[in-house]
Amino acid sequence: MESKIKVSIVGVTGYTGSELVRLLVRHPQVELLELEGRSAAGQPLGNVFPHLAPLGLSVKEKLERPAEADFIFLGLPHHASAERAAEIFEQAPNTRIIDLSADFRLRDRTTYEKWYGEHHAPYLLPEALYGLPELYRKQVTANTRLVANPGCYPTCSSLALAPALSEKIIEPYVVINALSGTSGAGRGLKQNLHYSEMHDSASAYGLEGHRHAPEITQILTDVNQQAKVTVSFTPHLMPLARGMLATCSARLSPEWLAQYSANPNAAIRTLYSNFYAGEQFVRIVTTPPTTKEVFGSNYCFLYPTVDIEAGRLVVISVIDNLVKGAAGQAIQNMNLLSGLPESLGLEALGIYP
Amino acid sequence: MESKIKVSIVGVTGYTGSELVRLLVRHPQVELLELEGRSAAGQPLGNVFPHLAPLGLSVKEKLERPAEADFIFLGLPHHASAERAAEIFEQAPNTRIIDLSADFRLRDRTTYEKWYGEHHAPYLLPEALYGLPELYRKQVTANTRLVANPGCYPTCSSLALAPALSEKIIEPYVVINALSGTSGAGRGLKQNLHYSEMHDSASAYGLEGHRHAPEITQILTDVNQQAKVTVSFTPHLMPLARGMLATCSARLSPEWLAQYSANPNAAIRTLYSNFYAGEQFVRIVTTPPTTKEVFGSNYCFLYPTVDIEAGRLVVISVIDNLVKGAAGQAIQNMNLLSGLPESLGLEALGIYP
Amino acid sequence: MESKIKVSIVGVTGYTGSELVRLLVRHPQVELLELEGRSAAGQPLGNVFPHLAPLGLSVKEKLERPAEADFIFLGLPHHASAERAAEIFEQAPNTRIIDLSADFRLRDRTTYEKWYGEHHAPYLLPEALYGLPELYRKQVTANTRLVANPGCYPTCSSLALAPALSEKIIEPYVVINALSGTSGAGRGLKQNLHYSEMHDSASAYGLEGHRHAPEITQILTDVNQQAKVTVSFTPHLMPLARGMLATCSARLSPEWLAQYSANPNAAIRTLYSNFYAGEQFVRIVTTPPTTKEVFGSNYCFLYPTVDIEAGRLVVISVIDNLVKGAAGQAIQNMNLLSGLPESLGLEALGIYP
Amino acid sequence: MESKIKVSIVGVTGYTGSELVRLLVRHPQVELLELEGRSAAGQPLGNVFPHLAPLGLSVKEKLERPAEADFIFLGLPHHASAERAAEIFEQAPNTRIIDLSADFRLRDRTTYEKWYGEHHAPYLLPEALYGLPELYRKQVTANTRLVANPGCYPTCSSLALAPALSEKIIEPYVVINALSGTSGAGRGLKQNLHYSEMHDSASAYGLEGHRHAPEITQILTDVNQQAKVTVSFTPHLMPLARGMLATCSARLSPEWLAQYSANPNAAIRTLYSNFYAGEQFVRIVTTPPTTKEVFGSNYCFLYPTVDIEAGRLVVISVIDNLVKGAAGQAIQNMNLLSGLPESLGLEALGIYP
Repeated sequence: MESKIKVSIVGVTGYTGSELVRLLVRHPQVELLELEGRSAAGQPLGNVFPHLAPLGLSVKEKLERPAEADFIFLGLPHHASAERAAEIFEQAPNTRIIDLSADFRLRDRTTYEKWYGEHHAPYLLPEALYGLPELYRKQVTANTRLVANPGCYPTCSSLALAPALSEKIIEPYVVINALSGTSGAGRGLKQNLHYSEMHDSASAYGLEGHRHAPEITQILTDVNQQAKVTVSFTPHLMPLARGMLATCSARLSPEWLAQYSANPNAAIRTLYSNFYAGEQFVRIVTTPPTTKEVFGSNYCFLYPTVDIEAGRLVVISVIDNLVKGAAGQAIQNMNLLSGLPESLGLEALGIYP
Repeated sequence: MESKIKVSIVGVTGYTGSELVRLLVRHPQVELLELEGRSAAGQPLGNVFPHLAPLGLSVKEKLERPAEADFIFLGLPHHASAERAAEIFEQAPNTRIIDLSADFRLRDRTTYEKWYGEHHAPYLLPEALYGLPELYRKQVTANTRLVANPGCYPTCSSLALAPALSEKIIEPYVVINALSGTSGAGRGLKQNLHYSEMHDSASAYGLEGHRHAPEITQILTDVNQQAKVTVSFTPHLMPLARGMLATCSARLSPEWLAQYSANPNAAIRTLYSNFYAGEQFVRIVTTPPTTKEVFGSNYCFLYPTVDIEAGRLVVISVIDNLVKGAAGQAIQNMNLLSGLPESLGLEALGIYP
Repeated sequence: MESKIKVSIVGVTGYTGSELVRLLVRHPQVELLELEGRSAAGQPLGNVFPHLAPLGLSVKEKLERPAEADFIFLGLPHHASAERAAEIFEQAPNTRIIDLSADFRLRDRTTYEKWYGEHHAPYLLPEALYGLPELYRKQVTANTRLVANPGCYPTCSSLALAPALSEKIIEPYVVINALSGTSGAGRGLKQNLHYSEMHDSASAYGLEGHRHAPEITQILTDVNQQAKVTVSFTPHLMPLARGMLATCSARLSPEWLAQYSANPNAAIRTLYSNFYAGEQFVRIVTTPPTTKEVFGSNYCFLYPTVDIEAGRLVVISVIDNLVKGAAGQAIQNMNLLSGLPESLGLEALGIYP
Repeated sequence: MESKIKVSIVGVTGYTGSELVRLLVRHPQVELLELEGRSAAGQPLGNVFPHLAPLGLSVKEKLERPAEADFIFLGLPHHASAERAAEIFEQAPNTRIIDLSADFRLRDRTTYEKWYGEHHAPYLLPEALYGLPELYRKQVTANTRLVANPGCYPTCSSLALAPALSEKIIEPYVVINALSGTSGAGRGLKQNLHYSEMHDSASAYGLEGHRHAPEITQILTDVNQQAKVTVSFTPHLMPLARGMLATCSARLSPEWLAQYSANPNAAIRTLYSNFYAGEQFVRIVTTPPTTKEVFGSNYCFLYPTVDIEAGRLVVISVIDNLVKGAAGQAIQNMNLLSGLPESLGLEALGIYP
């Protein structure tokens, strides 16, 4: 029997950290080694997250054996994450890190620093792999030891637009309206996330610029073979805890519209189905998907359609922001780097109703 | 003392009908005359809507004295509404009708029939006033006796885009992503509106064309002084009962962007504030509004902003779909036609939290 | 014309304070004088509560003219409230105070101090009127200048049990299970009220004793003509912002059951209807009420029924915890003390759906 | 290698049926054989439940090979279930049936017929095992071929009260207030389950008697060693789709209270912990549990506590009504009858937040 993958988690008291625990304990090839979480150091994990109490796990102030881990997942805020990654690589240069923060997502340090301030470990940027397997799988090498796990909005939006941009059938000027549940905003208390105020409430935010916009731009520009794509991105909070829906649109090229005028919807569906042929987690669905259909799962459901009147492609994309948008995709990356089937431990279906 | 306005309501067993009752009983100049609702004929209104039980009102199968009413509100499905309007005008040619269905909203019969099938009273179309007071107030005449009360999506979206289109600072090609609570879909039972399935669920719909798109196009084309405006409209259902948010965007003209490059957000706010100066129900707000802030009120809160990177105007607009998007606006129209202050009986603030 | 009642509000940045503003601005006999709220001193009220922005009101650090007010409402935390009441009475001994905190609800200082610690103005306790008009209306005198506005749980539960206890048809040992929306817990941020954690979540709390239990005991013991009533009270949080439902039960006396065995449900309904005959805000309803039916209104809907198998009275009671359970009842008390109809300014019906 | 358990499901278009599919496809020892669902006969299962579309399963009008199945799960309405069970046993007398309807839960035919009307297969009643493993595990024999899977309310409530009744420390007169999400009411459309009306709404129902009361009485009377237990049961609907919380209480015996007056809460916790020692799915928790903590899992979290003032035991119990309250428990029963670990395939933790 092959030995299991040894995994430690840093930042286990946040939502991405706890979601990693929930998923990894069910992964057949993983052994959970250590859990780090400063705010609950020395406590049972169940004190912080009663749903995890049956596991009987404890939280440490700091990992004691980082070098014993094959993978360390970081579920920390930005800056803290870059610092901890640097520290871990010093102690354990052969351990692989999957970072769920924004610290290594933007290849360009200047862009990063515009949005987040000074980078705390810029020398690691060149070796970071952007971990959106469906679009960047080929970049994995035997030496990859640092994965920047994508943001939830970029995952949801880019999967929706990549086929059309890749085939150059839309104008490289896209409009993305995305709705997110509140868990994406984390566990920290804020007035607008106070239940009484968020309940029954929908709102746009980040209208003066959102940190996920440059990340989306980077991906779409990659997909568009380096021709710059302009992204107008408007995120919204909607009253649910978990779930994300992106409505992504752009003008279709007149040539494409002319060529497929007989049945543009069939044509666009074929294009999308071909692009994602063989992908286990991306499904082209036949009715507009709801966030509930992928709740708790690692799926991305896509519904591409053509607005004939406006000559516009409109793609609806749904994911669970904490699974495909965070912890699930991180595990998919671990599987990918380990040579395992990408879906191992991620087979759960959506929980419905 | 002046005598009160006598009002009857048809279709009182639906959500717009019951909302009219709730609001009209608090209107200081209104006397409620008769309530028609076939499915509850002969019953106390409180049997259908317990929240209205304290009023002690009863429902009739059919209005008995239509000619005694100064105003009759129709809260019926399309087709039924046109038929009932025609019937009422035969019996009571001097009574004014405010129709909350779609039957008289589209001036062009062909367009109507494309979306709804044969019109049941097309000869009334020419005399219908489109009742969006902030944009069509000047068209009211002493003879106006039929008001087509706007749809909720068109109200929410058009108020958001009218200033920019009117000033011709945006391209006449607009993208509207709108989120609606479920009450806009009415009281009729449907699988996707079953609580267990709609709860925790967001989804887009009407992707093959939505009936409100031509209505929005009509308004925006009017505002744009008859130059056709292309509208790409994507409605969504979100998990709340009451509330609507529209995110409306379009490319800003390069000239305008160049002229106001120093502070485009201030410029756009000034433009919007001037356009709606003196309006009581439209407010340009200073933080992105939430649907909850206008819950139960007749307000429309607008937040216009500029996406510099994309050179795009993005306007967030929120209303209560059953008040400013239906019953409240209908009463505003009644006030307007009666020479009363438009806000009479509509002073309620949003209920928060 | 009679002059209006001059009213000031202290603690306007909390939910009860803002709800008082929302309701009082629509009261035909009230003039709003001053608003005090330290955390927003000097700011427009609309900065804190955008739904109130249309009013154009400002917040002061401290009331400047307390003696000019006929009534001052206190929406402060306990202790702070007693202190502020004492201070106001020193400056303005003839102003009447309606206190929405717990500070003057318990007549017995020892009981108060057991639950809340030292009382900050115990000498005012003897003159405080317990302001549950339906049960204590007769205790109002010309000299009443301090009203302890009841808690939401005590209001909802006591109205449900008072008729049965008053008629001595139930054992004086009652079980109350109450469900509350989160707004009753106030605006202060707490982990369990963080949207992501409270969403989709129901839980019991206060199981080691809840501060509202002695208040309920005090009322029910009064109603029971001083024979001690034992109260087993279990409050719950449910996932909605506004609304309260109490399920109150107790064993029926064998004599009563024997006497009305033919139709106990009809008998109990008659008893309840008679007890509340003439009350405008308490309604005995014919189907089990939902919290939504009284949303935003000052109503209490009661549904008394008999569990024959268990020989038990079960009464369902619903209120809006911020209206009849707080601000609405406070205004009802103001009306009562002013000789106005109790319902003045409180006529709003529930908002549904 | 041992061969897998062959399983078919009848009634796959309902919520319990679809939940069985979701869970069984992840069970390592199960092979899914056939799915029956008349309303979707011949269709892909994904047409009815998009979250199950990735499985690529189809629905049949009727099972074709019932005798090949080791287990057949019935997720049908009552009456239909008894009929189908009888029919299956005729064709496949050695197949074991786990019935999720109410048809075989009540041992006493007269009681059944009082609540449900004529029984459609009364001759099968004597051989039905009541499948609440924690309380009835010992009754399983090698011949057990029919399991009556318990109702969600009885599961949630009985687990909460069994330890105390079994130890005879409470009066055999219990009060149960239970809150349920809407999925327990099934997929059928009803006005009170229409999203717009159920949203933001809590209510009691079944006040004239609920079918689950006699089932609870049967269990508790068994636990109480055949001394009749009186149950006053009030179910409520609360605004969430999935989740159940029962607040169960009864007077503690004066002897017990006297004996453990020093620390009754510690004593009651010890008693409960001992009673459920070794149980994997029942956990005595240290803080009042929320429904969200067990969402999607087969756990029952119990929080027993003593209300000293009222001398009363109060136990809070939470389950996921579709897992431990239906499909999960059914699989637990299958495991039990198959000699497998009861938790096989049911290890999922709650999904939080």
